[in-house]
Order: sequence, then structure tokens, then C-alpha cells
Amino acid sequence: MKIVIPFKSENAKSRLSSVLTPDERRGLALCMLNDVIDATDGFDVDILTPSVLSGANIESRILLSELGLNEALNEYLRRHVEYVGGPVMIVMGDLPLVMNHHITEIALSDSDVVIAPGKGGGTNILCIKDPSRFRVDYYGTSFLDHLQIAHENDLTVGLYDSFAASTDIDEPDDLVELLLHGYGKAAHNMLTDLGFVVAVRNGRAQVERSGNVL
Amino acid sequence: MKIVIPFKSENAKSRLSSVLTPDERRGLALCMLNDVIDATDGFDVDILTPSVLSGANIESRILLSELGLNEALNEYLRRHVEYVGGPVMIVMGDLPLVMNHHITEIALSDSDVVIAPGKGGGTNILCIKDPSRFRVDYYGTSFLDHLQIAHENDLTVGLYDSFAASTDIDEPDDLVELLLHGYGKAAHNMLTDLGFVVAVRNGRAQVERSGNVL
Repeated sequence: MKIVIPFKSENAKSRLSSVLTPDERRGLALCMLNDVIDATDGFDVDILTPSVLSGANIESRILLSELGLNEALNEYLRRHVEYVGGPVMIVMGDLPLVMNHHITEIALSDSDVVIAPGKGGGTNILCIKDPSRFRVDYYGTSFLDHLQIAHENDLTVGLYDSFAASTDIDEPDDLVELLLHGYGKAAHNMLTDLGFVVAVRNGRAQVERSGNVL
Repeated sequence: MKIVIPFKSENAKSRLSSVLTPDERRGLALCMLNDVIDATDGFDVDILTPSVLSGANIESRILLSELGLNEALNEYLRRHVEYVGGPVMIVMGDLPLVMNHHITEIALSDSDVVIAPGKGGGTNILCIKDPSRFRVDYYGTSFLDHLQIAHENDLTVGLYDSFAASTDIDEPDDLVELLLHGYGKAAHNMLTDLGFVVAVRNGRAQVERSGNVL
């Protein structure tokens, strides 16, 4: 099982711009990437990224591609089929709640394709037993698109039902989940370095920083 | 294992007011309750509600209590300990993606307390092996509060990690999850009776109705 983690550090996590500076967003993105890499311990991991990851202490193989996400991943799959072979698991880099047991369970599935859905129709983890019979289509309702692509190719689909795997960190509200349920570098970095806490306002949990509601 | 489902039909799902009329919200709430009841098939179920459920075709036992959610549930647990005994599972009534296998897996856990977290620090399902040693504290970050109460009472806690169980339907964005992942009455009712569809706008999935973005 090969694992590939797509990652973008330039203008990373732009939907968190209202609560984090560009440097902080880049730092958070790298922490989350490291958390995901920790979760893939024991697997052979490639990082697929459009730019050099300066400042990142990463032991995985880093592959540079300036293509868009879908094109870069489909080119990656094509080369994998040609030169390596075997199953590929695509794990998004912004899943700081994912642990090693999630990755292992997905890798052990009998299904041709396993999808761990993200919020809002996203695909957070996608495991493909035979990449020669599949292509990815991220953005929008990629969950439905990947179901359709599997159907068109007569592939069985397993859904991996996990709150942790469904939690990608894109928007300020997502930081609540990271603070409440995270134990890795991203949660630790945010808690200690940036001063975030969870506060309840009007009966709802949200993140605050230095006394200001975000 | 006794299951109790707290449910409110009056002014139900008020945070969906911008997209559903009061009657539609009440109808959706009842559909979701029926989906949850379907998921508890094979268990002994009580519905705990502040008002008579007119129009609901429900075979479960309906218990009326005008107390607030926490007070009503803690009074329910107290009486259960006194007159019945044994474990109790509290399942929120707005979890239309929950299936029978989730309920069964939680019921089979060895932990003293099992929590299926909801988004934003909520507690969607709470299973208590010995209700004489626990009290509930919903609202706000109830997930943390329930961890704390378990800790204070020397109880082991199991976390039930499920995207389906984490998905409570409170806000318009949650309707996307119901439409994408629901197969029960709530999804069916919404799709057929109310004319909702999922549309992708600016790369993000959202619900639309009669051609209008909600």
C-alpha cells in the first residue's frame, strides 16, 4: 500500500484568513501535515506538492508538481500504475484527527475503493485497490463523483464511517474540533503557540484567542 | 439496554428557520425522530418529550416532562435506577444518519460510558452502564462535561468514532449531509416533499430548493 498526501503550503488554508495570519496558516498546515504523516507510520508515503516545503522536517519522499490537484493526482496514479503497481491511498493533508488505526483499517478493507467522506460532500481519504481502473475528481461533491466513477468502472465501494477522518480543517468553526479532539502537533501548536481556547457563547462552542471571539 | 430519545416538536429546529417554515421544521424533526427509532429496532425505547406528539405514528413509549433537557433526563435516569435498573443509552432525536449497527456497536461496548461526539463539542449518543453513577450535562461543550463527569466518578470512557453519529441536523449546512448520506424518512421526505437538491456553488456543496440557493 502506497500512501500519497497532497499538500499546498503557499496561501494554505485561505478560508482561515479571518483568524490566522499567512505565516500562522502555513505553520498550522505544516503541523497538520506532520500529524497526518505520523498517522501513516509504517506505510510508504509520498507528499505531492506544488512547491518546496522549506522549514518542514519531513522524511517522506516529496514530489513536486505544478499541476492542479486532480491533474497532479491522476498523473501520480498513472505513473504509479506504470512503474510501481499495487493499491494507493490518498490522504488529505488537513486531517489532524486521523490516527494510525484509521489508516490501517482502511488499508485492510476488501472493497475495491474505500472512501472516508468529509463534511459537505468532500472526500478526505480515498483508497484505490487498482489505480488503473480509477481516476480522481476532487472539489465540489467529490464524494458523489467518486461513487459515480467507481460505479462506472464496476468497482465495489466501502464507506469508512469516522468522525475523526471526516474532520478536515478549513474554516474557523473547524478549529473547535481540532482543539476538542486533537492530540497531535496541530492541536498542541495551536494551544501553546497561538493561545487558542474553546469558549461557550450563547450555548455554542467556539474558539477564542487572547480574549477575543473569532 | 434501555434507550431514551429526547425530542421537542414545538418550535423544533429553530436554527433552520431561515430555510424551513415552522410546519416543515416540525415535519422534518418528526421524520428524523422516526429514522432514529428505526435505528433502535430491537431495543426498548422511550421518547422523552415536553408535549404530546400529535400526528406522529410512534410505537415507542412516550413520556411527558416539562422539565428542561438536563433536568428531564437526570430525573429519567433517577427513576430508571429506582424502578428498572441496568444501562441506558441516550440518543438524540436529530441523528437521521444513525443506523442500527451503530446503536448495536455502542450497546456492546465494555466501557462504563460511551460517547459519540457531535460537531462543536456536542454529545450525540451517550451510553451509561450504571446510571446511578452518572448525570448528564447537555448544551455547550457537553462532550467535555461528560468526560469530566465520568472522570469524577471513576468511570472508563469509550469514544464512538462515527461520521454518521456525529451528524446532528441543526443548521442549513447540515442539510447537505442529510441529502448526501441519508437513506431514511428525513432524507426521503426532504427530497420528495420539499424539493431540496444539492448544488455546487463556488466549489462548495450546498442545498437549494426550487432553484434558490438557501
